Amino acid sequence: MIKLAIDAMGGDYAPKEQVEGAMLAIKANPDVVLTLYGDEAEIRKYLTNEERITIVQSEGTIDMGEKDPIRAIRSNRNSSMALALSSVRSGDNDGVVSSGATQALIAGSHILIGRLKAMKRTAIAPLIPTVDGGSYILLDAGGNLTITAEYMLMQATFAAIYAKEVQGIKKPKVGLINIGTEPGKGRDLDKEVFELFSKTDYFDFIGNVEPKEVLDPGCDVLISDGFTANIVMKCIEGTAKGLGKILKQEITKGIFGKIGSLILKGRLGKFKSRLSAEDIGGAMIYGLRGVVVKAQGSSKAYGFSRGIHQAATIVRNDVLNKVQQTLKQ
Amino acid sequence: MIKLAIDAMGGDYAPKEQVEGAMLAIKANPDVVLTLYGDEAEIRKYLTNEERITIVQSEGTIDMGEKDPIRAIRSNRNSSMALALSSVRSGDNDGVVSSGATQALIAGSHILIGRLKAMKRTAIAPLIPTVDGGSYILLDAGGNLTITAEYMLMQATFAAIYAKEVQGIKKPKVGLINIGTEPGKGRDLDKEVFELFSKTDYFDFIGNVEPKEVLDPGCDVLISDGFTANIVMKCIEGTAKGLGKILKQEITKGIFGKIGSLILKGRLGKFKSRLSAEDIGGAMIYGLRGVVVKAQGSSKAYGFSRGIHQAATIVRNDVLNKVQQTLKQ
Repeated sequence: MIKLAIDAMGGDYAPKEQVEGAMLAIKANPDVVLTLYGDEAEIRKYLTNEERITIVQSEGTIDMGEKDPIRAIRSNRNSSMALALSSVRSGDNDGVVSSGATQALIAGSHILIGRLKAMKRTAIAPLIPTVDGGSYILLDAGGNLTITAEYMLMQATFAAIYAKEVQGIKKPKVGLINIGTEPGKGRDLDKEVFELFSKTDYFDFIGNVEPKEVLDPGCDVLISDGFTANIVMKCIEGTAKGLGKILKQEITKGIFGKIGSLILKGRLGKFKSRLSAEDIGGAMIYGLRGVVVKAQGSSKAYGFSRGIHQAATIVRNDVLNKVQQTLKQ
Repeated sequence: MIKLAIDAMGGDYAPKEQVEGAMLAIKANPDVVLTLYGDEAEIRKYLTNEERITIVQSEGTIDMGEKDPIRAIRSNRNSSMALALSSVRSGDNDGVVSSGATQALIAGSHILIGRLKAMKRTAIAPLIPTVDGGSYILLDAGGNLTITAEYMLMQATFAAIYAKEVQGIKKPKVGLINIGTEPGKGRDLDKEVFELFSKTDYFDFIGNVEPKEVLDPGCDVLISDGFTANIVMKCIEGTAKGLGKILKQEITKGIFGKIGSLILKGRLGKFKSRLSAEDIGGAMIYGLRGVVVKAQGSSKAYGFSRGIHQAATIVRNDVLNKVQQTLKQ
């Protein structure tokens, strides 16, 4: 059985949506057992079916706006997030799903789970939506501000194994974020990465990708250093937010009226909500001795159940061991 | 009189729109005389009023898609762009306005005009539209991939003087592109810039700005190194392009029909067309011994006349000397 720890208290609508999401995930994944960490009385308000679900009582919470995530974790060892993470280190669970604060989850994963031997750095890998309704993996969205080409190769390899095992992509394509498409473009780091990635067999390197294709990059993984990729993620969000504002001004006035509102509530609105950098959804933290999936803070039951499904798929397909084996070679 | 060189052959609709734009600019700026560089016979097809306009015959053209901009300039010394730039070095003109290829214009400016003594690096500074219909100066959109904090201070000071003298902003606000708003965020360069900018009197430093505010940054100048700022510019374009595609799919189908098309042709469409990274409009190249303004390649007469107006305002307000004096202190 796949054993997952659920941070039932993290998220804008916790524990209700987390508990309901857990029950949905149980139905959809017959090989999964869940432990819900949180306030038992609160959880029981929404838990209508205890099949393959256990509750562990937590104490204290991690504030979503916490400025010092390391301190937040250290001073809240019995919070639902910290207990869930610790349960992976102790071997009680294979992975964690949390809608809690991203920075606290990253810091907590480092402190309470620890690093996979073969990965020299951890990384956070959100899924960025594309215009055709799909998504790609963005690396590294905030872990490492400075990094070497070798570490980026490890991260890209991890992402390629993830794309293959979890998303079913046979030969994942990896692109390097750069200011031009020609080889030789960019900073020294970019040139080194280009050369190193050109020689690898771990994935299909498609070369440089300019961010003017950022919602339609033609690859499954888009990589840069943690500073640049974080800027890219926030820039997508900022542009979507800004254009949304203009569109709203434009189409709620005059002749457009109600039709405009309908448009905003449609696919574009959904797209925008998937694009919040503060609130990355479906992101996996790479490089840990356990599976950690960050579900969106604003997750409702179905969205959260998809996060659990994602974590279960990663465990089921033995992604961490495959990464470990590949990188040891 | 203010003497400006016009590259009449650069641009998607050259020389027609450039010639008509020149005549519009002459009307709006009584203190300006223009020299149009290009094919005289072609220019005369559209020139209906020669008041304060001279024509100088050019030979050869610079291809918009030229991969090697330095060679393009070197092997086309008599092209309209090269002649216009050379006329600034020789003192015949105070500045140049061109809708030609951005990279060729930057390379040509270096080779044919040369650097201002007080500026150690040149920079390209496009105007990025904001949600409220205004704009801000983005630095450096592609000149210097690696740069020091001191050079960034020079560029920001140039931009602040530009904002004051050309845009009439009393105490221009400058923001640093970063991955978080708190002091201490970012790479070593960002921390150094933060410290250096905090001590300056040249402008009002508002601190770090995250790109999730990229269309509404709350400042007049947004700065980063040439790699990051170029990525930001292209990412805004890519997101706008991607969302435009989704919106188009959404609103041209079903019940929305024609109303959808109207929306796309409105302010949003205009906004998108202002956002092409390949085709920066209203961008000044900083750090040269002359005024060089890049008008959008797709400029029509009015847009091009605004580029001429912009160059005239820069000359009229003696921006280059003010920069030189300020940075010499």
